[in-house]
Amino acid sequence: MDKQNLDTNVICQIGIVVRDIERTAKAYADIFGMDIPKIRITDTEEITNIKFRGASTQARAKLAFFQMGSMSLELIEPVGESSTWKEFLDEHGEGVHHIAFQIKGMEQILAILDKKGISTIQQGDYTGGRYAYVDSAPSLGVILELLENYSS
Amino acid sequence: MDKQNLDTNVICQIGIVVRDIERTAKAYADIFGMDIPKIRITDTEEITNIKFRGASTQARAKLAFFQMGSMSLELIEPVGESSTWKEFLDEHGEGVHHIAFQIKGMEQILAILDKKGISTIQQGDYTGGRYAYVDSAPSLGVILELLENYSS
Repeated sequence: MDKQNLDTNVICQIGIVVRDIERTAKAYADIFGMDIPKIRITDTEEITNIKFRGASTQARAKLAFFQMGSMSLELIEPVGESSTWKEFLDEHGEGVHHIAFQIKGMEQILAILDKKGISTIQQGDYTGGRYAYVDSAPSLGVILELLENYSS
Repeated sequence: MDKQNLDTNVICQIGIVVRDIERTAKAYADIFGMDIPKIRITDTEEITNIKFRGASTQARAKLAFFQMGSMSLELIEPVGESSTWKEFLDEHGEGVHHIAFQIKGMEQILAILDKKGISTIQQGDYTGGRYAYVDSAPSLGVILELLENYSS
């Protein structure tokens, strides 16, 4: 049967945009009694094929992940050029940027969302998969991130 | 052993503040293929004992809950007087207001957070338990809600 919607409602991640990831990661570790995770930076555009509003960009981000129950909490510090992360920080300040879902069939789901008036904001690759952020904030109050891991 | 932190890191709820809960609930139902949940309004101050920044308020909210994986997604439309929900909407627009945790020992945990510089913004009762929102946005990028259900 053809998909009519996301085909999942399991939130696997919350992404929070911050100005100083080292400072914020330390605060989470303190308040929740967890270890400070390793902070890494996203790969360059040559590797991630990042597109922001349809155009290539050199934008990157520093990332840190905390496992919290069945989901991960991702801290994101925008680095460099324009991205959905930098745009959110400039417009709203620090805050929850997205909730994420593991999906299958990226093109099909992006097309379904596009028909519902929800366009793609940013997309790219990561080791083992690809992601897309969609412009769902006007209808859902938050950006959705779709994550598709490649089968091994 | 005395608690030094929240004693849990299991996110049980994400709360999103919206302007029109009926419209947003319909959009979630459509995009995730779920039923539209019943929308209810919080009880009056006489029942909830709601305090916002230490003072009584007549503030209420319309609420709707979607079960999404192991957690609930709460939509919140502020009604009436000042509250953390209305303040967030006025300052940031629609967006993720809080992430919530089930805790035990509300006073002790609020005191621990207060020592870490995180004060209580709003608190009150609901049927079967009580809640508190704390001013963690400056350090964590998001408000935390603590939920304590009474033992039956």
